[in-house]
Amino acid sequence: MRPQDIICIKRDGGELLPEQIKLFIDGVCDSSWADYQISALLMAMFTRGLNEQEEEALVREMLHSGKIFDFSKITVPKADKHSTGGVGDKTSLIIAPLVASCGVAVPMISGRGLGHTGGTLDKLESIPGYNVKLSKEDFHSVVDKCGFAMAGQTADIAPADRKLYALRDATATIPYIPLIVASIMSKKLAEGLDALILDVKTGSGAFMKSFDDAVALAEALVATGKRFEVQTQAVISDMSQPLGKYVGNALEVYECIKILRNEIEVAARPAWELSLELSARMLLLTGKSDDFESAKQICTSRVESGEALERLRLNVQCQGGDPSICDDPERLFSKEIVELPIRAETPGFLNSVDTQVLGNAVSSIGGGRIKADDGVDHAVGFSSELKIGDAVKAGDTIGVLYCRNADDAANAASKIREAYVLSESVVTPPHLIRRIIG
Amino acid sequence: MRPQDIICIKRDGGELLPEQIKLFIDGVCDSSWADYQISALLMAMFTRGLNEQEEEALVREMLHSGKIFDFSKITVPKADKHSTGGVGDKTSLIIAPLVASCGVAVPMISGRGLGHTGGTLDKLESIPGYNVKLSKEDFHSVVDKCGFAMAGQTADIAPADRKLYALRDATATIPYIPLIVASIMSKKLAEGLDALILDVKTGSGAFMKSFDDAVALAEALVATGKRFEVQTQAVISDMSQPLGKYVGNALEVYECIKILRNEIEVAARPAWELSLELSARMLLLTGKSDDFESAKQICTSRVESGEALERLRLNVQCQGGDPSICDDPERLFSKEIVELPIRAETPGFLNSVDTQVLGNAVSSIGGGRIKADDGVDHAVGFSSELKIGDAVKAGDTIGVLYCRNADDAANAASKIREAYVLSESVVTPPHLIRRIIG
Repeated sequence: MRPQDIICIKRDGGELLPEQIKLFIDGVCDSSWADYQISALLMAMFTRGLNEQEEEALVREMLHSGKIFDFSKITVPKADKHSTGGVGDKTSLIIAPLVASCGVAVPMISGRGLGHTGGTLDKLESIPGYNVKLSKEDFHSVVDKCGFAMAGQTADIAPADRKLYALRDATATIPYIPLIVASIMSKKLAEGLDALILDVKTGSGAFMKSFDDAVALAEALVATGKRFEVQTQAVISDMSQPLGKYVGNALEVYECIKILRNEIEVAARPAWELSLELSARMLLLTGKSDDFESAKQICTSRVESGEALERLRLNVQCQGGDPSICDDPERLFSKEIVELPIRAETPGFLNSVDTQVLGNAVSSIGGGRIKADDGVDHAVGFSSELKIGDAVKAGDTIGVLYCRNADDAANAASKIREAYVLSESVVTPPHLIRRIIG
Repeated sequence: MRPQDIICIKRDGGELLPEQIKLFIDGVCDSSWADYQISALLMAMFTRGLNEQEEEALVREMLHSGKIFDFSKITVPKADKHSTGGVGDKTSLIIAPLVASCGVAVPMISGRGLGHTGGTLDKLESIPGYNVKLSKEDFHSVVDKCGFAMAGQTADIAPADRKLYALRDATATIPYIPLIVASIMSKKLAEGLDALILDVKTGSGAFMKSFDDAVALAEALVATGKRFEVQTQAVISDMSQPLGKYVGNALEVYECIKILRNEIEVAARPAWELSLELSARMLLLTGKSDDFESAKQICTSRVESGEALERLRLNVQCQGGDPSICDDPERLFSKEIVELPIRAETPGFLNSVDTQVLGNAVSSIGGGRIKADDGVDHAVGFSSELKIGDAVKAGDTIGVLYCRNADDAANAASKIREAYVLSESVVTPPHLIRRIIG
């Protein structure tokens, strides 16, 4: 069957058989399908739709386009967390050592930031010497030693996804749930997991802005996880404002270490609360705990006892970083950085934050990437002092921009000021945890 | 506006503004749009649809992507015919000299055959020495001297179409009326015409098999022609069997010369009837004649007087071919060709012909192209002796395959035998002219 014959079926709204989807993914991997044929089929899938069987076949073929980790020698349960991405979304750095300290192995393949969202790999690279480029063998060995490892996708994990994702990005075929599910799950299932918790964000800083879209994506992800016999659950969490206090790579690592040190500032509490929720659910899904309250207690005790922090220290050491950062996280603040406070011009209550605009403003001063091949300035960022529902007086600090110089950051500061919308009447703060799916 | 922003609008079923379609076609021509972005937008157009305004903008931008002929020095009206393609469809070679002999200039840009359909350029190249690769200047000068010229599309005529057509062919986005209209009309409007007659085929050998689809295409083509101020009409003609007697390049040229010599065999009559219909309508559209019957009489008289044949002779001379072919068309039959009769196995009435299968069978023995870069054997082909509705006895000749050797052609012969379906009861022959549009 020629590529155009397969494209033709979906173009006319027909159902693709598993063997036709296999031919497609094989063609993506061996380059026998031209990029323009791949993108035509992706657009036909987007506009005509994929049913559950097609979606499952797509996940399966994309998963099997690469290698799958074999952690059969590790006797403890394996679990991971995946987030759909947001602003100030730093939970991976808390959850991985915390859950590992509870006796669950966490083989965490992470990504980099793009556009308004940050990426775990960029954050980790704020730690002097930390190496996120692990071979498959090194990744295995770090999981063995520390109970968790954090690294980038190697070339042999779901290679079809890399090519498809790049084409989808260039052809406006990203935001379609079955394609999103196939992209996420083909990578996550390659980790050889027993359990997977999904953090699906909703709100102004999320990929899925509407609650209903977030629920639909969460349901599709959970159904796919279960179909592939992985214990899967999703948490719909609020991304209508930055999560916790800081946005920016080194600043977020600082916040995480402070949380693992049990030195939790008020502004950082939501980052801890969501990390606790997700970690406790990983213990439930792996059978490490029977009920949610005791799972949370176990997690909290691991932070209070310092065991979670010790796991991070061990991991930083294993991955080539400077473990003393765990003792002296203040070193993550660069001396060359200027602090530019952003102040409220009128009194009122914080009503909403255009969190995507905020994320893009931080990217514009170097804290993230505009294009995929941009570099990242680890030191810059933003601290979010004001939360939705907070009362504010004229002149109060909304947040602080950490920048290379205040002049360059003036444009970003004005965008951030516009992103914070005050109201004259009292505002109810949003719930951090919106719904549990699965 | 980035390509993905424009793709996104159509992906979601929105309307593209003229300036967005201009950006698209500019991007196709200057290669700032990648092929995979072009094909994604083509698929979105196919599945979401284009309205009349979008279709008009697409034609306009594709037309203006290249040069437009300036025949302002030619004082007679300019007209052309375009056919959607079929099997044995040879009317161009009759119409161009005939209409030119009636005082209408015919600047005819033609194509090559592909798949089951033949192409005028391939047919012309059966004439020893005939050159279909004319520069724009030579093309002008041949029209000046003979009243018509027949040549291939030069690189500067609607260049966007060449790229789009190749991508559509590889991505299953050919059969969508607004894209077909844009492809046909961007080339035809570049000829600087006063009038255009469209021969839209319907039936088993046509591109648009169903009558309703043919009508829809004809209506869209006529509307576009009128919008661009060209007198346009369409004839829906029957392609449920080969047109006239022969299928194959040299054989069809032979049939055309015999018609222009007014030596018209019974099996060839439909080719003459359709040519007469289309030619007469070109005289009406250009105002050379006021009513259809007198237009047909003028055309018939030009054949009877030999004036039409003399126009062909002059043109063959001008385009480097051997004009003596007009006196001795039998020379077009190659001595190296074997004739393989295909006979009816049972008696009955010819009920239907799978004309596409027949066309593909002729291509398979070298008479056409399977792939666009294949060569063509001008000498081979098929003569279609039996017409739908004819009574046949067992052992009667259905047709004759003209092939290099009978062994190689056995497979084609068996396909052709299957393509001819007999019935026990009487069959009404189809009407050649099905409907006039516009």
